[in-house]
Amino acid sequence: MKELKEKVVEFTKERDWDQFHSPENLAKSISIEAGELLECFQWNSNYDIEEVKDELADVINYCILMADKIGVDPKQIVLDKMEKTAKKYPVEKAKGVSTKYNKL
Amino acid sequence: MKELKEKVVEFTKERDWDQFHSPENLAKSISIEAGELLECFQWNSNYDIEEVKDELADVINYCILMADKIGVDPKQIVLDKMEKTAKKYPVEKAKGVSTKYNKL
Amino acid sequence: MKELKEKVVEFTKERDWDQFHSPENLAKSISIEAGELLECFQWNSNYDIEEVKDELADVINYCILMADKIGVDPKQIVLDKMEKTAKKYPVEKAKGVSTKYNKL
Amino acid sequence: MKELKEKVVEFTKERDWDQFHSPENLAKSISIEAGELLECFQWNSNYDIEEVKDELADVINYCILMADKIGVDPKQIVLDKMEKTAKKYPVEKAKGVSTKYNKL
Repeated sequence: MKELKEKVVEFTKERDWDQFHSPENLAKSISIEAGELLECFQWNSNYDIEEVKDELADVINYCILMADKIGVDPKQIVLDKMEKTAKKYPVEKAKGVSTKYNKL
Repeated sequence: MKELKEKVVEFTKERDWDQFHSPENLAKSISIEAGELLECFQWNSNYDIEEVKDELADVINYCILMADKIGVDPKQIVLDKMEKTAKKYPVEKAKGVSTKYNKL
Repeated sequence: MKELKEKVVEFTKERDWDQFHSPENLAKSISIEAGELLECFQWNSNYDIEEVKDELADVINYCILMADKIGVDPKQIVLDKMEKTAKKYPVEKAKGVSTKYNKL
Repeated sequence: MKELKEKVVEFTKERDWDQFHSPENLAKSISIEAGELLECFQWNSNYDIEEVKDELADVINYCILMADKIGVDPKQIVLDKMEKTAKKYPVEKAKGVSTKYNKL
């Protein structure tokens, strides 16, 4: 993960793109790329694996830049969030259902 | 990264949620969470770091599940995409500008 | 509005596209097009008016199709929602602030 | 449509919210609300009609504000875009298929 972050940040640095990468602009970029990923599934659940790989990579790329920009570790925030989610969705209540926590 | 993936997948398994996690549903989920992340910046560029951490974590979490579901390595697809992007945005043309490749 | 709806529905009928327009697929389409609209503002607040018009039109187009598909009147649902929003955001509390209702 | 626009704009004016409604912020808002609409279909194609009505209304509401803000007529831009789309998707080629124009 650390190595990947360094490569992503280096790529941005080489192009002097850091000036465009405010947290706000990165949040927009993640939404935009998420929309392109969703487009792979617009009309049905079949998908072209190469397109999905490219679009998913774009989302992850901007997530790494966002984490770097706001100074957090991607792994750590996912682990922290899982703890919170575990409380909202305890195994005994959430098992096998997709119900939202406020209706569980 | 591998360790994180295992924890995320394990969390899902414990709750028997894998049945809901088709690639299509995960693509929807990534878009939905990206929208929640964007909401942290809806009216201005200030943000609550705790909210951003939580929402960014949700996006990354679903990206990891998606990569696992379609059988690809998150790190590898980002590196592969960077190679393609490097060709679309060569340093000498793209340096310091946010212009889209088709207008460079 | 009624005339516009008829034209949009007719366009779809001519192409036999109604089969793809499940509410779920239309919801995906609205998100995808909203992402394309957002792309007009990805790196700054300047925008190309022609691009914005095209992308905004796509969002509205799918909204009209969605309303038609689920059998509701676009105008009526906006008016109904405004009544609810007025209760969440009474003028005296919400005036001049962008605070979310749960923090007002 | 004109009457609806007036009510939506009036609602905003009463709350002095126009200051937050830059085209950029409205584009973000449309994406955010589109994500909430998509959430109604996150795990399957069943939906709660009341929730869908509310979320669709939010998207339409922000689209009306955006059109007003950039000084265009919602109906006209949809008609204009339909003309362009008709050229990209002529009936004889597009009939009954969901293929994107660049692959038709």
